[in-house]
Amino acid sequence: MILVNGKPGSSVGVADRGLQYGDGLFETLAVNRGQVLCADRHLSRLASGCRSLEIPVPDEGALRNDLSTVTKGVARGVVKIILTRGVSARGYRAAANPSPTRIVSSHPWPPFPLSNRAEGVALRVCRTRLSINLRLAGLKHLNRLEQVLAVNEIDDPKVSEGLMLDTDGAAVEGTMSNVFYVEGGRLMTPDLSRCGVHGIIRAEILDWTRVHLDTPVGQTRVGPETLLKSEECFVCNSLIGVWPVRSIDGREIPLGPVTQSIQSELKAAEIITPD
Amino acid sequence: MILVNGKPGSSVGVADRGLQYGDGLFETLAVNRGQVLCADRHLSRLASGCRSLEIPVPDEGALRNDLSTVTKGVARGVVKIILTRGVSARGYRAAANPSPTRIVSSHPWPPFPLSNRAEGVALRVCRTRLSINLRLAGLKHLNRLEQVLAVNEIDDPKVSEGLMLDTDGAAVEGTMSNVFYVEGGRLMTPDLSRCGVHGIIRAEILDWTRVHLDTPVGQTRVGPETLLKSEECFVCNSLIGVWPVRSIDGREIPLGPVTQSIQSELKAAEIITPD
Repeated sequence: MILVNGKPGSSVGVADRGLQYGDGLFETLAVNRGQVLCADRHLSRLASGCRSLEIPVPDEGALRNDLSTVTKGVARGVVKIILTRGVSARGYRAAANPSPTRIVSSHPWPPFPLSNRAEGVALRVCRTRLSINLRLAGLKHLNRLEQVLAVNEIDDPKVSEGLMLDTDGAAVEGTMSNVFYVEGGRLMTPDLSRCGVHGIIRAEILDWTRVHLDTPVGQTRVGPETLLKSEECFVCNSLIGVWPVRSIDGREIPLGPVTQSIQSELKAAEIITPD
Repeated sequence: MILVNGKPGSSVGVADRGLQYGDGLFETLAVNRGQVLCADRHLSRLASGCRSLEIPVPDEGALRNDLSTVTKGVARGVVKIILTRGVSARGYRAAANPSPTRIVSSHPWPPFPLSNRAEGVALRVCRTRLSINLRLAGLKHLNRLEQVLAVNEIDDPKVSEGLMLDTDGAAVEGTMSNVFYVEGGRLMTPDLSRCGVHGIIRAEILDWTRVHLDTPVGQTRVGPETLLKSEECFVCNSLIGVWPVRSIDGREIPLGPVTQSIQSELKAAEIITPD
């Protein structure tokens, strides 16, 4: 089911700036047992992204109504929210009082292999790099050509995700996920101040570790060789949950206790789906 | 008038990858006395962009038919072509055999002040930077948030265009134009191998100078201070033609013979509109 500005629909106008320029934001949410997981956090990130791009923040009640309408009768699935700056005259300049386009759609749960969570996955380092731009870093905006090119490099069905480096060679994230690793017993994750997406599950993990770990998570700028040599590594997002990474470019990485405890804590807290 | 895949239409499906990810390319063409200017060059750049992004190249006959349909009875105007990778399943991975979406639309000629060509314009250096990415450099793709943010910084109606620097501080282009300048009597333009758009008028000027100037155009990586101190400076695109730049951030630049001769040569060759 698709709602466009709260009404059933399946299309947007050609002049919409989402299509014209990728001028907008999106969210991807998991639905489990009829509940949208981490809805508050997703709506809060969307509002924060709007403020950053100077797109009017959508009415929260309207968005929650949309979520409830598209998930009616859905036990398990995916919801995607797209918010664009709406229509304007031709050209990059935005309308003085933009009227955003709000698209909320539900989708079947994707067929991820169940073994990915239990046994882990293989990663490959992508050739396509992430651009560094302080103005766009962290935002889940609609300019996603780099991710499209990166994931389409992967032609080996045994490789489940691509690891992306920035144009300076630092490891940043997966094509659709954030990445964590353990080095010297300490949990680490790449710094996202120059590029990358501030993922919801990443934020939940950072919150959880503040309470439950003695040492804060290190936010690093390191090359992929550091991850290849790590004691544990995992990728995470709202749909996959937590996938242990068992190899990067064929180099094996152990499955360890930090990954497993975070995975079970997030399941128990209903932040990620049970499987 | 709008054609979507050759048929009158005004919308695209929400699942189109142009909207979802900015996964596509575009062209903006001028129509003068019923003729589309530089049509061959635009279609050739579009095809080249498709090959670079691995989007199937659209049938040239179909595109030319669309151009002729949307410009029927149009003496003067603008045509925009958008080509997206079409629809796929949810997620960044492209369909195995993508069926691109082709959108061709005509628009009224924009109300640029006539004085811009004769007397020149004021530029301002934008705070929003252009990301460096060798994989995307030169392409006229649909990921245009940087240009949107840059042009929306400009709130002074006396400033007609923004000059964009890359994240390393080099001057690259305008928000909607390419830039040339004269230094020590030699015509120069920023190198676009790391970011920026290979503009059609820029390419026409480079071709023209190969025949008519003794010294080839220098392709440079310099900071904005070099342009501020230049002997002449101009910006160009398919619609504006050639606008002399008379000031950048308030610092005055002379209007000189190189700019004026290029402007009149391009008009005479019907590469740009007469006014």
